[in-house]
Amino acid sequence: MAEFQRPRGTRDFTPEAMSTRRFIEAKLRKCAERFGFGEVMTPTFENTELFVERSGETILDDMYAFQDKGGRDIALRPELTAPIMRFYVNELASRPKPLKVFYFGNVFRYERPQSGRYREFFQFGAELIGAPSIESDVEIIALALSCLKDVSLENIEVRIGHLGILECILEESQLPKNLYGICLRYIDKQDIKTLKLLLSENGIDPEKQDTLLSIISMKGGRDVISTVQTMVEGGDDAFVYLANLLTKLTKYGFEGCTVDFGVARGLDYYTGMVFEIDSPSLGAEKQICGGGSYNLAELFGGEEVNSTGFAFGFDRVMLALEKDSVEIPTKGIRAYIIPIGQSTRPTSFEILRTLRENGISADIDLMGRKISKALAYANSIKTDKVILVGEKELVNDSVTIRDMDSGDQQTVNINDIAEHLKT
Amino acid sequence: MAEFQRPRGTRDFTPEAMSTRRFIEAKLRKCAERFGFGEVMTPTFENTELFVERSGETILDDMYAFQDKGGRDIALRPELTAPIMRFYVNELASRPKPLKVFYFGNVFRYERPQSGRYREFFQFGAELIGAPSIESDVEIIALALSCLKDVSLENIEVRIGHLGILECILEESQLPKNLYGICLRYIDKQDIKTLKLLLSENGIDPEKQDTLLSIISMKGGRDVISTVQTMVEGGDDAFVYLANLLTKLTKYGFEGCTVDFGVARGLDYYTGMVFEIDSPSLGAEKQICGGGSYNLAELFGGEEVNSTGFAFGFDRVMLALEKDSVEIPTKGIRAYIIPIGQSTRPTSFEILRTLRENGISADIDLMGRKISKALAYANSIKTDKVILVGEKELVNDSVTIRDMDSGDQQTVNINDIAEHLKT
Repeated sequence: MAEFQRPRGTRDFTPEAMSTRRFIEAKLRKCAERFGFGEVMTPTFENTELFVERSGETILDDMYAFQDKGGRDIALRPELTAPIMRFYVNELASRPKPLKVFYFGNVFRYERPQSGRYREFFQFGAELIGAPSIESDVEIIALALSCLKDVSLENIEVRIGHLGILECILEESQLPKNLYGICLRYIDKQDIKTLKLLLSENGIDPEKQDTLLSIISMKGGRDVISTVQTMVEGGDDAFVYLANLLTKLTKYGFEGCTVDFGVARGLDYYTGMVFEIDSPSLGAEKQICGGGSYNLAELFGGEEVNSTGFAFGFDRVMLALEKDSVEIPTKGIRAYIIPIGQSTRPTSFEILRTLRENGISADIDLMGRKISKALAYANSIKTDKVILVGEKELVNDSVTIRDMDSGDQQTVNINDIAEHLKT
Repeated sequence: MAEFQRPRGTRDFTPEAMSTRRFIEAKLRKCAERFGFGEVMTPTFENTELFVERSGETILDDMYAFQDKGGRDIALRPELTAPIMRFYVNELASRPKPLKVFYFGNVFRYERPQSGRYREFFQFGAELIGAPSIESDVEIIALALSCLKDVSLENIEVRIGHLGILECILEESQLPKNLYGICLRYIDKQDIKTLKLLLSENGIDPEKQDTLLSIISMKGGRDVISTVQTMVEGGDDAFVYLANLLTKLTKYGFEGCTVDFGVARGLDYYTGMVFEIDSPSLGAEKQICGGGSYNLAELFGGEEVNSTGFAFGFDRVMLALEKDSVEIPTKGIRAYIIPIGQSTRPTSFEILRTLRENGISADIDLMGRKISKALAYANSIKTDKVILVGEKELVNDSVTIRDMDSGDQQTVNINDIAEHLKT
């Protein structure tokens, strides 16, 4: 007799957990649809090179990459933007623009399992492809924020940056261009120590170093834009863009966004606006969303097209909701039928059938338990009402309906049960 | 510039495809919940031995099995009953019985891609664990049939068999017990030629061979039960069980079930009742559902517990719905806003925001297109109404709302748009 465990870093979800997860998933889906986004789905695994092309060879260390029986290199997807842009280039590029899509799916990362980090986890995200940039960026951020509003996650921090400005600073510092990517990754990870080392090793002027380090640590309101603008020579367009973005977001009802020049996203294909959303309640692992405008279609063989998008870490959102004690309704069933004695079972099953056919969730005691034990079971599965089907009442075509909250009991005619339970 | 293809045998789903798939998925989920089943989810991959323990070493040929970086043998799940029973044994066994769970998930098989068969596909299924057998079997079959009723797939054939009777026949034929499994697999595949060869090679009496071959080809109503009963010496309990099952299903409103002694399911852990549902419209690949009562908990280190369940091939169900021309509502958006000229854009965005905040799906022309092109786009994304925001009308705080079906236009006050669109 073997004993089997689930693989390390993975999870099983109980009915209670799934009920809350599906509830939140449905809210997010509904919000995206309200914004005119349509859902797409891509395979769970892709050819490995797709992700290497997107993120560089280092991604191989963090992926479930393997060879299939035909010797092809495939990998469980570590994220969904690359697969969706591959899909776009292959099949959707000829559709009228803009193309607005969203997704909800599982992704995989081979990393040391630790609190709040799993090897299989879930992302909900959206991509807006093919529309001019600023209104697309507003639409994408507004969608992300509306999603969080719809799931009642109120305690959040939105940080918006712009890679154009970071690039400007790197250019002025005269860092070799081929090091921009690695530099942005250090900024993204807030690994200031290694960043300093990189800058020094490459002979960057100490004053320029200080400017860069001070800018990426700056966070705040609109005034931060003006302050940083005085510290950088170029990047005028990007500063104006950021200011306009904030204005438009405010008009859309989202006022409290923070400007943060330290948002770098750490991937080469981001091009302009980048943003992150945190749930401060989550502590060190506080980021629940990341996004920005990017160019991937070209990388995958398509024509250049303006794109912007975001992804929520769905598991982190769930965790944040829990930490912030946001109430999520739990699902039980409406009616549990307890046949009293064998003779009432046929009628009990008829009642069961009628209720279900009327769209009422209902279950029946399959164990032949005594009333008290059957009531305990009904309680454990969160039943609103219990229908006691007894011989005596059946003579008068009636049953007893017990409210499980109040304990009140009522005699109800068999033909009125469905109606009674609808109210 | 590389070009990337999706892996062989996998699919991408467009927004239109996802919309119909989610619609059907939601119907199935709702039906299962109405029957008192709760959703569970397990990881996409499991330790390989879980599936080998369940199905034997041969399963390795058909699985995506590989080693992770830690040298552990893991496999993309080829089905979900084994993972769920593992979950049950590990964590759910102490819950009050019965435990009623359902799942919707992707599964993987490494086989030659062909029409209607994919390497990643989807299953929707349910398991009823821990209740006495006959009413559990009725509940499971009733759920499967109610699911199909809810999605309006009417042209189906339900075939119910019993492994107890098949075993009886094999015993009487004096086939060595260790060959039962392989024999059932040939029956399952309807590979009569190889089955005959197996029986002859093992010196089975020709008359007994004929009996077996004739019984597994018998299909029909209740009368088939009596006919077969005269051909077999034992198995009385199983015959009574089958007859009772049909009676109970009829009482539940499901009359047209066929008895089919050729249903074998081909896996060793099935124990009693087995059933399959076909969509005749699908031709050779007509089976859309399979299930039966089984014992897996013991195999996975748990205590013996009566279990019964089924799984739909979700993709086959979708295909059957298409073949049978079952109409599935398509999703569009309620309103598409066209700002006429730059000056009306700010107000247009305010209208957009108001509509969405009122729960109305709405989108806006992000491209700054001329009216005719914007209308063509609105049409392509299936919009009910177009809101034309023009300078002249705005002076009177109003907009023009155009019905995309009829072409009728109405002037509506800005403050009444949401109300107007709700009706």
